[in-house]
Amino acid sequence: MADQVSALQAAQEAKDASAAVAACSAAQRSRAIEAAASALEAHSADIVAANAQDMARGRENGMSEPLLDRLFLDEGRIRDIAAGMRAVASQADPVGEVVSGRTLDSGVRLTQLRVPMGVVAAIYEARPNVTADIAALALRAGNACVLRGGSAAALSCEAMVEALREGVAAAGLPAGAVTYVSKPGREQTSDLMRANGLVDVLIPRGGASLIQACVQQATVPVIETGVGNCHLYLERTADPECAVNIAVNAKTQRPGVCNAIESLLVDRDAAPALLPPVCAALADRGVELVGDADAREALEGGGITMGEATEQDWDTEYLALKISVACVDGVDEAIAHINAHGTHHSECIVTCDYEAGERFLAGVDAAAVYVNASTRFTDGGMFGLGAEVGISTQKLHARGPMGATALTTTKYLLRGEGQVR
Amino acid sequence: MADQVSALQAAQEAKDASAAVAACSAAQRSRAIEAAASALEAHSADIVAANAQDMARGRENGMSEPLLDRLFLDEGRIRDIAAGMRAVASQADPVGEVVSGRTLDSGVRLTQLRVPMGVVAAIYEARPNVTADIAALALRAGNACVLRGGSAAALSCEAMVEALREGVAAAGLPAGAVTYVSKPGREQTSDLMRANGLVDVLIPRGGASLIQACVQQATVPVIETGVGNCHLYLERTADPECAVNIAVNAKTQRPGVCNAIESLLVDRDAAPALLPPVCAALADRGVELVGDADAREALEGGGITMGEATEQDWDTEYLALKISVACVDGVDEAIAHINAHGTHHSECIVTCDYEAGERFLAGVDAAAVYVNASTRFTDGGMFGLGAEVGISTQKLHARGPMGATALTTTKYLLRGEGQVR
Repeated sequence: MADQVSALQAAQEAKDASAAVAACSAAQRSRAIEAAASALEAHSADIVAANAQDMARGRENGMSEPLLDRLFLDEGRIRDIAAGMRAVASQADPVGEVVSGRTLDSGVRLTQLRVPMGVVAAIYEARPNVTADIAALALRAGNACVLRGGSAAALSCEAMVEALREGVAAAGLPAGAVTYVSKPGREQTSDLMRANGLVDVLIPRGGASLIQACVQQATVPVIETGVGNCHLYLERTADPECAVNIAVNAKTQRPGVCNAIESLLVDRDAAPALLPPVCAALADRGVELVGDADAREALEGGGITMGEATEQDWDTEYLALKISVACVDGVDEAIAHINAHGTHHSECIVTCDYEAGERFLAGVDAAAVYVNASTRFTDGGMFGLGAEVGISTQKLHARGPMGATALTTTKYLLRGEGQVR
Repeated sequence: MADQVSALQAAQEAKDASAAVAACSAAQRSRAIEAAASALEAHSADIVAANAQDMARGRENGMSEPLLDRLFLDEGRIRDIAAGMRAVASQADPVGEVVSGRTLDSGVRLTQLRVPMGVVAAIYEARPNVTADIAALALRAGNACVLRGGSAAALSCEAMVEALREGVAAAGLPAGAVTYVSKPGREQTSDLMRANGLVDVLIPRGGASLIQACVQQATVPVIETGVGNCHLYLERTADPECAVNIAVNAKTQRPGVCNAIESLLVDRDAAPALLPPVCAALADRGVELVGDADAREALEGGGITMGEATEQDWDTEYLALKISVACVDGVDEAIAHINAHGTHHSECIVTCDYEAGERFLAGVDAAAVYVNASTRFTDGGMFGLGAEVGISTQKLHARGPMGATALTTTKYLLRGEGQVR
């Protein structure tokens, strides 16, 4: 794409393409996604070359290793991305489902039909793979999409979008089914957030500050995703082995993701029995521990180091090998702590007590609430939704992992013979 | 309520009450709605007295007769409002429904449960009855609510809320289940629109300017409601009698509502046959007609007056006995005109041609699309949803008439035996 495309140009092109994308069949959309995946592979040399420029710029600007790793693309990663797109191409199509229906008293027949949203916009950070993920899911749900990746990944994203558009067009859909805001500058992002009438839903994918910027500035409907200050609560009857396994998995398997735990709660009177094995296992895996006075006391003399937690720790999503530990008096206090400090993402209780488990499930206000299983299961793939648009932490429209269906809406069709009211 | 309650005080009180409202049973919520309805009737003298003050102030300020009529309350109207609440009390409860469920590959059992939103906020105009409607529907769906009526109805709304709170408390729920922002001033409305963390969804109910203010300023999730620039399209094969009946009903039965039609489209070559009877019937009922050149030509010599339509007319929701008339060349042009100028509310085709009807149903982007039936059917009651929160014209979360279910969300419950990823 030689010319720089502004947010409103990209949104208008997507809007113009949206009716054609919505009108084509599920099979046509599958073919378009497959063609886009193949075009991505066919152009992998160009994409890798563009990515090399982004990587070089990132290194110059002192980008951290984990961020550089997220930015990096090679032939192998592009093959994986294309394979992910083909999985979406073979997924069930959500469009056209009859959601409900009835005959009204007047005899008019009402059908509530699942239909595409229209235009889906996504703003994300320097992760080129999100470009292909969102494009594939938007197409699966019959939408056109407007993409805006982080500036540090601009060349990679633009090269990918060029390939995706070529594939989509080869399959007979308008290239405008996938558009990219290539014009740099914050005002482009702001314009996209306020493109009412062109954009039907905006999905920010990234860190807390990006999501907050969208929530504060956007006038188009937004789905908040991803921020996860998740808790693991060890109720007094918790099985120590189960507690250790879940704590280690939920904290250390992938500490940088939103469904990893950031805080450990434990019943005060069970802390001397439960905290030493759990904290030792976490410390063994390099997890830094900070806790309140009672938690630190429970570890005394055991050779495990625990720093002093501040009030701020209870509200912090570390996304790193660090965890805060607090003692509570029973399940109700645990629920109150989680509802006050959590981000309504994924929360877990470990318990052998039936009533405590059910009370926790009912009382915790979160997208996913667990008894005796790792919070790491909160994921579109794990939940059987196929690929994932993101994990909604708001209550409107979709909550928890979102698959292609979250990018649809419904429409009422009414067929009559001249009925009036 | 002697003291003035700020938006943040009201929202906090509702938030504090929300867990108790969510936790109680469907039967308890039904009793609370019934008790609130009875309290409304028991205090009807106070409410009528408060309303008389609002009415006197309205007359002094030159409020129009239709607005005064919307503001007016007497014992009879309060009885009707209470009866509406009792209908909501006897409606099916949406909370607790298992929406989906499966066993994950790991053996963890997943259940997707319908749960209350938490805190529902509503901003509306000087229509005191909305106070009771929204309170009843919010309670039906297990939510606490924060209400803010138009300043011209302040005393009426406050008196109603005082009674509703007394009833709710008598039924054992916290009075904070229903709160009212009584402190005057626009900054209170702004505060309510930006009460993230306290308000889960905001529903503006009223005219286009109120809804636009919410869309532009709100940072909490909003459901846009109500603006309806609805069209009736007479396809060339339309039965003239059917066309007349639907046009008259959709335009004149209640011209001030959002599902009334504002624009008539007709196939150019059928205009000389279809427009004279339809326009004569509308003119007979006092409807002012404005149209394009071809529409005016089709009426020439028939004694029906039609003014000249400007470009602005195609985008105007008159909410009055006035209609714009345009000629189009076939169903595709009609669809394009509607998608460009409509507000995605309710749109109708009159036709005897099967293909034209199906094409219109598929191509028009609106909450409700009709073949041969009046747009006036777009209504929660008519659609069998019980009482209505409003009619959503956005695509996120809910589209079309919204019943109590639109005030719920879902939550995933996961039960395991120590599974990790």
